[in-house]
Amino acid sequence: MALIVQKYGGTSVANTERIQAVAERVVAAAKQGNQVVVVVSAMAGETDKLIRFAHEITDQPDEREMDMLLSSGERITSALTAIAIQKLGSKSMSFTGRQVGIITDSSHTKAMIEHIEAGRLRTALKEGKIPVVAGFQGINEFSDVTTLGRGGSDTTAVAIAAALNADLCEIYTDVEGVYTTDPRIVKEARKLDKISYDEMLEMASLGAKVLHGRSVEFAKKYNVPLVVRSSFNYAPGTLVVKEDKDMEKIVVSGVAADKNQARITIMGVPDTPGIAAGIFNDIASSNIVVDMIVQNISSDTKATDISFTVSKADSKKAFEIAKNVSDRLYAKGVNMNSDVAKVSIIGVGMVSHFGVAAKMFETLAKEGVNIMMISTSEIKVSCVIDVKHSDTAVKILHDVFELAK
Amino acid sequence: MALIVQKYGGTSVANTERIQAVAERVVAAAKQGNQVVVVVSAMAGETDKLIRFAHEITDQPDEREMDMLLSSGERITSALTAIAIQKLGSKSMSFTGRQVGIITDSSHTKAMIEHIEAGRLRTALKEGKIPVVAGFQGINEFSDVTTLGRGGSDTTAVAIAAALNADLCEIYTDVEGVYTTDPRIVKEARKLDKISYDEMLEMASLGAKVLHGRSVEFAKKYNVPLVVRSSFNYAPGTLVVKEDKDMEKIVVSGVAADKNQARITIMGVPDTPGIAAGIFNDIASSNIVVDMIVQNISSDTKATDISFTVSKADSKKAFEIAKNVSDRLYAKGVNMNSDVAKVSIIGVGMVSHFGVAAKMFETLAKEGVNIMMISTSEIKVSCVIDVKHSDTAVKILHDVFELAK
Repeated sequence: MALIVQKYGGTSVANTERIQAVAERVVAAAKQGNQVVVVVSAMAGETDKLIRFAHEITDQPDEREMDMLLSSGERITSALTAIAIQKLGSKSMSFTGRQVGIITDSSHTKAMIEHIEAGRLRTALKEGKIPVVAGFQGINEFSDVTTLGRGGSDTTAVAIAAALNADLCEIYTDVEGVYTTDPRIVKEARKLDKISYDEMLEMASLGAKVLHGRSVEFAKKYNVPLVVRSSFNYAPGTLVVKEDKDMEKIVVSGVAADKNQARITIMGVPDTPGIAAGIFNDIASSNIVVDMIVQNISSDTKATDISFTVSKADSKKAFEIAKNVSDRLYAKGVNMNSDVAKVSIIGVGMVSHFGVAAKMFETLAKEGVNIMMISTSEIKVSCVIDVKHSDTAVKILHDVFELAK
Repeated sequence: MALIVQKYGGTSVANTERIQAVAERVVAAAKQGNQVVVVVSAMAGETDKLIRFAHEITDQPDEREMDMLLSSGERITSALTAIAIQKLGSKSMSFTGRQVGIITDSSHTKAMIEHIEAGRLRTALKEGKIPVVAGFQGINEFSDVTTLGRGGSDTTAVAIAAALNADLCEIYTDVEGVYTTDPRIVKEARKLDKISYDEMLEMASLGAKVLHGRSVEFAKKYNVPLVVRSSFNYAPGTLVVKEDKDMEKIVVSGVAADKNQARITIMGVPDTPGIAAGIFNDIASSNIVVDMIVQNISSDTKATDISFTVSKADSKKAFEIAKNVSDRLYAKGVNMNSDVAKVSIIGVGMVSHFGVAAKMFETLAKEGVNIMMISTSEIKVSCVIDVKHSDTAVKILHDVFELAK
């Protein structure tokens, strides 16, 4: 008997018909002798509707209130799913983030999980019930509702799987698994049977939307085996696990593009130690996640240009902070470019193969794509380019690295 | 400086435009030097939508899950209203039933408030914030969400007004106050300036939908002055207060009809002491509220017929229980009639005036309306009649008792 956490995304629970299909899949897994914990997202479109309501009132709604507002969507799905499971004759019970004991910090709209008191979940499982947890949410020390950021239900699922020491965490979505790149852009894109946590982490943070990045970090940290698969059919999906020998053969396993980026440059910053720390402390204390950071040598040897990327949603706020920093440091000014995309190649084999990055740069150059920023890690190379070249870049990189094979 | 609790119903917060209009009214009251606590219902149509979802899955959804489901609607409105108040430059904060400390029993879908720990509300008021409370909900001892039944937001508002010892509780709705009868049925219906708690209680329980009955009980018990008024204009509304001298002059102050009733009769019940108690204990333990009870003398002197009315929603369940009781007592069987309405006249002056009931019966008889059951109290006379005669009965009674004057 295995303990499985199944997470169903928004399109998988888009209406009551879909919710009943999910209930059947859940009950089937339970009837095979498994203990099942279900985590659900808001019904597709629900969260967007609630955000639209808030934006009809103001473009800068208070974040505590946004969490109260948005956490409703998952509660609705959890109750309906429990009802659908009961209808099939199994015992079930819905739980909010609070009732499951998901305790987070107080960074409203992007809270981090501090710990999970899974007592009520364990009791429910012991009583033969199938718990259905509202994803995406927790409470902070003041007992206020917090949310984990968009896609946070993946994190809820993995965190619960870790807390319960589950055998498997299944992430059900509307695609059949993780692909070498976005199949909507490159029709030759191929589904991967297996991918390592690190590669998945890069894929996720680089714009492949199948899995929320933080959930993969969590899975890696607690070694929770993940499967990404479709709730619309019974295809086996992609297994996300620890790196193994097989994987080393593959050099590049995927290409990803993230169009939700903005690049900010502070020009002519005095080139003295501690300056960068100062800048990024200011930004971090506003709970903005900075992605790439590149410091260029300026023509002026006493000054430097610092560029960084943030998500489009945070870009206005980050730009304001950068302007303040620029004024304070007597820098030469700040500029921002929102028409950028970050295109990346990912693969665990990359670190032991020379020339992979060079091949990427060369390929882009041949197509006349100008590279604005470069960032590399052991298993990925990312380039920030003009957004208008993004799709082409993905296609040619997918082709050059022979990912369709 | 007065402390005012303002409750806004579903049509008053039907969309973000209406929510912003409500925020303006709230802020205006605060700027006049009052402390204001806001209680909100779900946006009009939201609760019905959620119920429809549940009924798409099953016609008998679990009540704990229904509470989880339905409590979402008010949370959404509370967050949006707090955002709208903040937009106008005032400090505001939303609260769930749990965060306000509304502790109820565990009768899911119709929970009773046991007490209110209003600590966080008091703190918020002290900090100059306008708290916006999600109506209709609380939590039980297990920390599960409960709801107070439809229209329960009125009860939330009055209970909070009582807990905070508020000076006034304003119930904002889409009508201008309490009328002598339903203006949609009788166009001569007249708005009352003032009505006593007892009369309002009868009006509410008898089908006048302006105020939830339990909220009036609560208001009477804790002597909370209520005002029922429109959120769509600045008309003064109807004051609901303790009975005073003025009121005694009026004999009949209103006519109400309730079409949401079903009559169940258990025939040929052995006429021995304790039988009625047995029947209604069984029904009460299913959390069904029985309204009228009439015991008729049967032709058989050793047996009797017992009729009672329940709401249509509870009628199936009540019918099943009645059948079991009937079998157990060797009674002659059970029948149910859902095509009934309860028409009532209400007035504090009634008790000291002879012939009011007789006049009602006579009026109905003249119109050929058959009376199936009669029930009287100090301040009302109710008759159960065929639902097809309901509107006519209301019109002629409104006319005969000269309520349009």
